[in-house]
Formats: sequence, C-alpha cells, structure tokens
Amino acid sequence: MHGEVNKRGRTRRPTMVDVAREAGVALRTVSRVVNDDTTVGAELAKRVHDAIAALDYRPDERARHLRLGVTGTLGAAVRQLSHVNPVLRAVERAARAADLMVLAASTEDDERLERRVVESMCRRRFDGIVLEPIGADHGYLLPELAAGLCLVAVDRPVLGLDVDCVISDNAAGIQAAYAHLAAHGHRRIAYIGDDERIFTAQERATAFRACAAEAGAALDGMVHTGPIQPARIANALATALGGPDPATAIITGNATISVEVVRSFDDRRVAVVGFDDSELATLLRPDLTVVAQDDQAIGATAIDLLRARIADHNRPVHRVTVPVELLTRGSGEQPP
Amino acid sequence: MHGEVNKRGRTRRPTMVDVAREAGVALRTVSRVVNDDTTVGAELAKRVHDAIAALDYRPDERARHLRLGVTGTLGAAVRQLSHVNPVLRAVERAARAADLMVLAASTEDDERLERRVVESMCRRRFDGIVLEPIGADHGYLLPELAAGLCLVAVDRPVLGLDVDCVISDNAAGIQAAYAHLAAHGHRRIAYIGDDERIFTAQERATAFRACAAEAGAALDGMVHTGPIQPARIANALATALGGPDPATAIITGNATISVEVVRSFDDRRVAVVGFDDSELATLLRPDLTVVAQDDQAIGATAIDLLRARIADHNRPVHRVTVPVELLTRGSGEQPP
Repeated sequence: MHGEVNKRGRTRRPTMVDVAREAGVALRTVSRVVNDDTTVGAELAKRVHDAIAALDYRPDERARHLRLGVTGTLGAAVRQLSHVNPVLRAVERAARAADLMVLAASTEDDERLERRVVESMCRRRFDGIVLEPIGADHGYLLPELAAGLCLVAVDRPVLGLDVDCVISDNAAGIQAAYAHLAAHGHRRIAYIGDDERIFTAQERATAFRACAAEAGAALDGMVHTGPIQPARIANALATALGGPDPATAIITGNATISVEVVRSFDDRRVAVVGFDDSELATLLRPDLTVVAQDDQAIGATAIDLLRARIADHNRPVHRVTVPVELLTRGSGEQPP
Repeated sequence: MHGEVNKRGRTRRPTMVDVAREAGVALRTVSRVVNDDTTVGAELAKRVHDAIAALDYRPDERARHLRLGVTGTLGAAVRQLSHVNPVLRAVERAARAADLMVLAASTEDDERLERRVVESMCRRRFDGIVLEPIGADHGYLLPELAAGLCLVAVDRPVLGLDVDCVISDNAAGIQAAYAHLAAHGHRRIAYIGDDERIFTAQERATAFRACAAEAGAALDGMVHTGPIQPARIANALATALGGPDPATAIITGNATISVEVVRSFDDRRVAVVGFDDSELATLLRPDLTVVAQDDQAIGATAIDLLRARIADHNRPVHRVTVPVELLTRGSGEQPP
C-alpha cells in the first residue's frame, strides 16, 4: 500500500471556465481558441494557450463530438468478448486500417443485455455498430435506425428488419460436410448442433435434414439440437452412437460442440466434421476436419458495409453471404 | 439487396432546437423539461413532451454526461479482445453486478495502440479503466491520473507509476510447479516461457531460476524465454529434450505456450505443468496439470479497486496479489 497518489492532488478536471479565469479572457475567447478560430488575435491566443498549458486543460471529447457529430468509433456488440472470436478480430483489424477504434461489449446471448448495450452505444453516438444479433424481436432498433444508426449484423441477420448483414453460407457448409462423409462411405451420419432458436443453428440443422432426405437416410436418433451444455451433448452422442444402427460419422454445429464431442469420445473411431475452425482443431488426434468460415472476409466486409452506410444512409441494404471451405485434416476421412 | 431502408427516411437526428420549434417554446424550456426541472408549468411541459414524442427526439447521452460528469461505463484495454480471457470475463461480470457497462478495446501488445486506446477512453470520460499494461513507459498516464483518471492494472503492474493493481502470485505458482515435479522424481526440469520484457514473464522466469538454484540443478539448456512463436518453442523443446542429459519435465510460462509444447510432442512421455488453466487443458491426453490463476478473484478485485478509487480519488494505492492453485490432472504426475 502506498500513498503517493495523495500527493498528486487529484481533483476535478479543469474546465474552459478555469482556463478563461487563468488567462483573464472571456469564456468565448477560450472556446474560439480551442476550436482553432483564426480570427482571435495572436496575443489573446497566446494567453489562452499558456493558461491551457498551466492548467493542463484537455478538451472534453464528448463536447467536441457534440459539435462535430463524428467520433471515429465503432461499437461491437458480440455474444462474448472473452471468447475466441476470429470475426471480431477481423473487424478490429479492418476498422484499425480505416483509423476507426472499436469498443466492444458482450451481450451474453441475453436479449435484454443486447438492447442495453446497443442503446447505450447509440446514445454515445458511435459512428456505427457491428452486432451479432441475439433475439427474435429487434423492434427496439427501429427508432434508432430511423434516427440514423448505422448498423451491420454479422453471423446472423437481424430478423424482421432490413439491415446490412454478413453471414456464412451455412447450407453450403453442411452440404460439403455431408457429401464428404458420404464419399468416405458413411450412411449413418448424425448432427449435433446449437439451439435452433439461433438463426445460424437453424440454417445448419435445416440443411442437414435436407441432405439426409436427399440421400434417403433415416433421421431416427440422428439430429440433436439444443443449448450448448456438456450433459446434453454427451446424451446426444450416446443416443447417436447407441442402438442397433449407430452413427459412424458426426457433423457438429459449431466449434464449442466439436470440443464437447471430442471430449466425450472414448477412443472411438467415429468420423467427425466440425462446423467452424478453431485452434483446438489441430490439437486433437486425429486433427479435426472442419467447415471453415472465412472470418477475415466476414469482418472486413462488415466494416466495408458499415463505412458505406455511414457515408450514405440511404444506400440500398446489402446482405452478403460469404463462402465456406472444407479443410480435411483426418477426423473426417475415417471409414465407417 | 433491398431498398426498404430508403423509405424509413433516415436523416439527421432531431435536436433540442427541432423540439423547441415543434413545441413553439424557447430552447431553454426544452432543456428544463428534458432535465426534469419541475418549475416548468404543466401545459408547457406537455407541449414539449408531445414534440419529443412526435419527433422521436432522444437526448444525447454525451450532453448529459457533460452535465452530470458520470457515465456508468468502464473501459477495458486488454491484449486481445478476441482471445480467451477469463479475467476480462470476470471483470465484465463484476461490473455488470455493479450496474456498470464495460466497453473493451484491444491493445495488441502495442505500446502506441495502448496509449491511443487509453487516451481515447479518457477523453470519453469513462468512469474508470481496467488496463493490462504493455509498455515499460507509461509516462503518458501521469497527466491523466493527475486529472482524475481512475485506473486499475491487471495481470501486471504499471511499471514506474503508483497505481492500483491486481496480479497473480507468479513466484508461488512456479515454486508449486517445481516442487510438484521434484516430488515426482524429476531432477532435469526445463522452463519455456514468454518474452521477459513482459513483467509477468519475467517474474515467472526469475522464480524458476531461483527454484533451480535452490535445488542445486544445472540450468544449461533448461531455460527458454522469448516471443510466443511456434518455431521458437519447437526449438526450445528440441534443445531441452535433446543432448546427453535431457529434461524429463517441462514447466510452461502460459497457456498458449502449453498448447505449442503439447502440439510439438511426438507421444513423448515428458511431464508437463502449465502456467494458467484453459479449456484446452482437459482436451489433452493426459489432461494438463496446471498452475491455475484465480481469474474470478482477479476480475472482481479489479472492479472493487476501481469503484473504491472512483468513490475516493485520494485513497491509498492498493497492490493486491491473488493466490494461485496447482491442479493435478495427469501430465504433471508422470515419472522421469
């Protein structure tokens, strides 16, 4: 414990009023100098600058934003900050390249929290918001959009609202995974996915059912969707791999489920194709074959769309679908 | 592509001036109503409220903050947002429990970026900042601290400045790891750690050297610190496990290095104790024995310190060291 901070004499921040008093000039003279008004005489300007230096006065950026109406800041409202999120990483990179700062907050898959976060960013007059939308009802966004909010949705569209969005080609990814396993001789393929109330999860599960129908494969005990809970996933796995006609291959709905599935394996030789790549994929034995999303393209496109929207509020809405890619690494090439 | 947005007629946000015009009242009447000044007559107040509703006027939070001087928002400047960061997660949780929103930005281990992020948060008058400090020189913080910035450092102290911080007991963690391996019969123990320019990495490497000295163990080829690059770590591993008297056990300096070390293993039976727990630890075979940091305590303590600092700028500086815990899971219990 130290007391040095006391000596710094932390007090309230000096204001323009303090500067005016120190310089012995009118408040509006300080304001004009701070705002680079060149009509202020050199001698007056010097007195103001000296007072600013003496008091270490710093203009309040919020005040300046009020005048200029720009901030150079984007908000990002994502499921969870402290999780691996390559799309957020790509968003940050693309924003930085455009000299924009990203301030991000977690929505924790909680609709009320999403609303609080987004509304707070709106009130702060961020230039734009990148949103991983949660809820089914985004009506709260309507007045914000009407008032000029620039928004781009990533990973999922904002259901019911016509806003820019960037999503992966989920159906094509599932089709590629299914075709790959079928080409390796699998006829009993199971799907373990996320909660279908989530748009992405629903797209993937729907695509899986369509693949099975087209292949003439029975779906009994083969489709398991729901929340990402270890116990649920272990049960789903037990069902898919039990019974008289067990699955010989599994497609997972996202990277977290891939981890849980592999964690539950008891050295079984079951083929696995995971949706979504992650650093875990190459730690497993065999390495995980995955449907990789193009996170870089998603993040960069999101920033492109947002900047275009900021430049022209009235441009047509864009919905961009980004291709996915099957990366074969071993786990998806095992025979039945 | 859709054009519905056009019909919404996105324009600039309505201002108080628009409200005053719509209501047919003076601007300061609008201001008084917005600020809940009860001395405004009921009829006037109603006209203002009607105009606010008609225009869907929303007060600019930045303006309100200018008046009230509070924002209910904390900034978090961390190495990398889109990485697993259980401390940030704990910070968010503790902040949310105190009804504070966390807006986070990445510093990418880049001193200049750290400065830009922190200064921007200061100019936005965030209530406080949680910082994972990067650089050796934090002089830029001095005027901000003098001007009232409330700051808490996590994981590492702000070198050279006397500010609140919360760090793990790095030395105790290394000592526990070393003693554990020694108790399992290891005499040749290697350390592969992070860049020693990072405070935490330096504390851990120093503690390792002290343990070896106390045990009377030779350090030739046994200590490898530097940037987290797969090739460097593979080389370090080759050196430690090669030669006439190879290491039979390895202590790693952080979770990312643990992953790289395990990834480089070719089914060797070498004991490993990792510093820092992660979801990867229980995916490995055998599961990884780790020195686990108490992320929950670190995050919660950081928010406690920050709130106390906000409440009393002049309270003494606190430096809190949080205990670590050895979790034995298999990899650290293998014999030489």
